[in-house]
Amino acid sequence: MESSDLYPITRLAAAREAAAVAGLDALLLTPGPDLRYVTGYEALPLERLTCLVLPVKGEAFLTVPRLELPAAEHSPASRLGVEFVPWEETDDPYAAVAARLGGVARVGLADRMWALQSLRFRDALPGTEQVLAGTVLRDLRMRKSPAEVAALREAGAAIDAVHAQVPGFLRAGRTEREVGRDIAEAIIEAGHSIVDFVIVASGPNGASPHHELSGRVIQPGEPVVVDIGGQMPSGYCSDSTRVYCIGEPPAAFAKYYDVLQRAQEAACDAVRPGVSCESVDAAARDVIAAEGYGEYFIHRTGHGIGLETHEEPYIVAGNAEPLAPGHAFSIEPGIYLPGAHGARIEDILICTEESGERVNHRPRELVVG
Amino acid sequence: MESSDLYPITRLAAAREAAAVAGLDALLLTPGPDLRYVTGYEALPLERLTCLVLPVKGEAFLTVPRLELPAAEHSPASRLGVEFVPWEETDDPYAAVAARLGGVARVGLADRMWALQSLRFRDALPGTEQVLAGTVLRDLRMRKSPAEVAALREAGAAIDAVHAQVPGFLRAGRTEREVGRDIAEAIIEAGHSIVDFVIVASGPNGASPHHELSGRVIQPGEPVVVDIGGQMPSGYCSDSTRVYCIGEPPAAFAKYYDVLQRAQEAACDAVRPGVSCESVDAAARDVIAAEGYGEYFIHRTGHGIGLETHEEPYIVAGNAEPLAPGHAFSIEPGIYLPGAHGARIEDILICTEESGERVNHRPRELVVG
Repeated sequence: MESSDLYPITRLAAAREAAAVAGLDALLLTPGPDLRYVTGYEALPLERLTCLVLPVKGEAFLTVPRLELPAAEHSPASRLGVEFVPWEETDDPYAAVAARLGGVARVGLADRMWALQSLRFRDALPGTEQVLAGTVLRDLRMRKSPAEVAALREAGAAIDAVHAQVPGFLRAGRTEREVGRDIAEAIIEAGHSIVDFVIVASGPNGASPHHELSGRVIQPGEPVVVDIGGQMPSGYCSDSTRVYCIGEPPAAFAKYYDVLQRAQEAACDAVRPGVSCESVDAAARDVIAAEGYGEYFIHRTGHGIGLETHEEPYIVAGNAEPLAPGHAFSIEPGIYLPGAHGARIEDILICTEESGERVNHRPRELVVG
Repeated sequence: MESSDLYPITRLAAAREAAAVAGLDALLLTPGPDLRYVTGYEALPLERLTCLVLPVKGEAFLTVPRLELPAAEHSPASRLGVEFVPWEETDDPYAAVAARLGGVARVGLADRMWALQSLRFRDALPGTEQVLAGTVLRDLRMRKSPAEVAALREAGAAIDAVHAQVPGFLRAGRTEREVGRDIAEAIIEAGHSIVDFVIVASGPNGASPHHELSGRVIQPGEPVVVDIGGQMPSGYCSDSTRVYCIGEPPAAFAKYYDVLQRAQEAACDAVRPGVSCESVDAAARDVIAAEGYGEYFIHRTGHGIGLETHEEPYIVAGNAEPLAPGHAFSIEPGIYLPGAHGARIEDILICTEESGERVNHRPRELVVG
């Protein structure tokens, strides 16, 4: 895919306009998903300041450490017609940005800007109110373009290819860490450029939603929750969970796994434009609660996904945001029995004009090997 | 290595005392190196708030999303006798922290806290001044303990083992990306848990210090800068650069490579307690400038290293900080000829009672294969 499709140069103007509508004077975008979304530039988050300064009135510029200048010039940001302003190791780049920007009342900071930088901008721009750039960029970033949807489908196919190999990696007697290492290699081989996370949670560890890897030896008859994801060269992320079992699972587990599968299906079926995020959450939660497992579903039903694994929209109680075509998010209810075992089933969905399109297609039944 | 050696429980009291001395009322440490240093807890940086709240007066507590609670309880933070305060998906954890903390005049934020969080703390704690926790923790974090020095030596040996394999990966006709993939796998096989960066910069790409990987095909007779690093399970980082050449390099390159090697040696020789960071920078820079290459050495001589690849002390002009035993940092001068090629030689050093101890031991001569 061409970066000009995924990262069209029109985003600079769209971001500027959204900032103007929100009453901001400028956006300050340091490396991370906000900067990449607007420019296509995949800059490393480092202590040296790299920052796209996008004033509502006046010319945008990219402040960049001199040693990063060649990398910036070879990045998609070079297409934008934005001046690159290098700084030397002994300069104060915050003062330089402030001087060039002039007096501004309100600036939007990249949501992931480090305090190391936001507090220096605060001091360099006294009297300027700082707000989150995310409040301005969220509507743009939530509505995925056809090229972004294609990138998410590609990421989904890649992580599906890894899940297809998991039964070959999982054997009783191996540790979670050994299995996790095989999975991490497979994530890269499947085309991801970065391994974001590898959760292999066997037996009682499955009751901890964000357990990662341990030296625990996997036992026969134990459910194993495998939640994995990575970032593709496009910048877009994958994230999918399936549950495996070596031999027959405990009867108590099989009972609630069936409930969970119906809950995940119900939430997926609830997806369509105009439906609120919280009602999709409720669609899963109601099935689980009706069967008496409500207290064991201890997290939201899902999160948006794109250039970040977790971004808006969040599929959570209290979020009245209506779904719209192009929204992309996970549907991943879970049931966790502390000390015993747990389960989660996760697909990424795109909201289409009519319903939800899954980008993950591996069987959702418990995989008994 | 036991986590109790690397992450002693005494750090909580030391951080509290340093905060008191600095006139702060509390530290707010979100996931990242500051939190890991103080608690040993390797929490993922996520949009949901996890935060160690460490008041100068009163009891510390760890605010944690309920779904992260099992992971937190299994982490080294459980040894600290700190209360874990879980929050539910629909709670406002910022308001909860503010209510529990009471009125405070000045708080220190983890240097890497996202704006997403720092601005919410600002709003939840109106009238409270935010400063960087780094100003409090820097002196603690800079002085590596014997266990931390051992962890850095272990990381150095691991990345040396990768460099030892690089000549086998580099062949004319392969792309930088193909070589980079082999190196990334070797970084994991050598014992790192995370690949932090893989720079394979061939020919003219070598003139861009932070070039990463491209589809460029490596040619015979081209110098290739290989700068690689990762994070070990201990949390401590490796970082080392060597230059390789397939066949004989251009004469112009060989000439300045020799200068560079002398400059790197001079800076390493300059390391001892009491010597300023800027004078170590000057020791390298003077050698390069005297030979007429001053304008091609476009970055500082080095950076501190520990739980972050880049941390204090920075070996840079203007930094009068005196070196002290336990300081750990890179010495990595470079010479970059735009459009042609470039070179950098990098070792990590520990300042001992008398001098500098290198943790990287691969030959520094140009490796001609």
